[in-house]
Amino acid sequence: MLKLYDLAGAEADRRFSPYCWRVRMALAHKGLEAETIPWRFTDKDVIAFSGQGLVPVLVDGARAVHDSWSIAQYLEECYPDRPSLFGGASGKALSLFHASWANGVLHPAMLKFVVLDIWKHVDAKDKAYFRESREKRLGTSLEAAAANRDNEVAGFRDSLLPLRLVLRGQPFLGGEKPLFADYVVFGSFQWCRCISDFKLLAADDPVYLWRGRMLDLFDGLAGKAKGYPV
Amino acid sequence: MLKLYDLAGAEADRRFSPYCWRVRMALAHKGLEAETIPWRFTDKDVIAFSGQGLVPVLVDGARAVHDSWSIAQYLEECYPDRPSLFGGASGKALSLFHASWANGVLHPAMLKFVVLDIWKHVDAKDKAYFRESREKRLGTSLEAAAANRDNEVAGFRDSLLPLRLVLRGQPFLGGEKPLFADYVVFGSFQWCRCISDFKLLAADDPVYLWRGRMLDLFDGLAGKAKGYPV
Repeated sequence: MLKLYDLAGAEADRRFSPYCWRVRMALAHKGLEAETIPWRFTDKDVIAFSGQGLVPVLVDGARAVHDSWSIAQYLEECYPDRPSLFGGASGKALSLFHASWANGVLHPAMLKFVVLDIWKHVDAKDKAYFRESREKRLGTSLEAAAANRDNEVAGFRDSLLPLRLVLRGQPFLGGEKPLFADYVVFGSFQWCRCISDFKLLAADDPVYLWRGRMLDLFDGLAGKAKGYPV
Repeated sequence: MLKLYDLAGAEADRRFSPYCWRVRMALAHKGLEAETIPWRFTDKDVIAFSGQGLVPVLVDGARAVHDSWSIAQYLEECYPDRPSLFGGASGKALSLFHASWANGVLHPAMLKFVVLDIWKHVDAKDKAYFRESREKRLGTSLEAAAANRDNEVAGFRDSLLPLRLVLRGQPFLGGEKPLFADYVVFGSFQWCRCISDFKLLAADDPVYLWRGRMLDLFDGLAGKAKGYPV
């Protein structure tokens, strides 16, 4: 069986990495089962065999693949008879824009909102590492980064306009059915939902409704995961 | 021959609509020639046959199609043996995100930068209409909207990060070759380039280099068009 090293908090079943969620949804899309192995930020030695220190890492027999985009490509190439994640070479190239938007626009904004909640949930052995590395990235304390989130969320919701415009016209970014682009962007929202009770989305937002459809996919794979009903 | 009603300034060969550029590039991609007919904002009666009052309007024999996205779909359906604009149904669905990003993020920012220059270039009969409608949309005078652009352009360039990240890894949004998603986003930059000498992009930006590749396509269709070498 496939094995996926999957970021976990102090509770082994709190899985909150946006990149790992991309892969878990992609595996389900392909109808592939995988054993997920809880992994903490400081377990660098555990995945040293992959040649680097971040999850997700997928182990398929003798092969290890890291990085969510590379894993999606790997699954598409090695399991071509299963439902496609990209809908062809053009779809794969086009999906890079969704990934770049999630990484470059969503994540910096979301990180400020949830970073303190992440710190509260990470394993005791990860707390110092997490605080130090994220405070360096943010240029401020975790507490200060999150302090103004109630005022900043309106601007964040405005920034979702490109997503909202698409989802007013079709149920998924991939059209009538979800594609990897959906899993990429959904992973960002699932990251927040699994780790924080902060209300990112208004309930009448087409983005909220799309997220609900994503939570329901694959017999509620993401919806049943440990998190907050926000 | 196909006919395209194409927004023009006081000079009939200054064609500056982002939406018309999407269509002109799409027509060239399909290897289709079209006569472009210069059209001004207030020529509503000229295109009344299309059932609405905005360009682009494409006339193909007895059929008239308006709206750049609808025209691209029309071309894809009616000329399926020519090079594809979307790379399949998934590619079409995914390209909506690029269009929503251009419409929802690029255009509001760009409009402030170039709106006064547009007003300077539009036909005399369009000037009052253009000023009134755009000042209403912007909630301020054209002069005030553009006044701070030298300071605002840095933030605008930052907002191009999703585009920049993709173009660091592949020559076009569509991958090795351009697709309609490229023409959609390029249309926005070409709008500005045709109407304003304001320097939107730094010359070492991967976005600038991509724009250069777009300007060179189809024997320099866009690059040779009347505009400013910025």
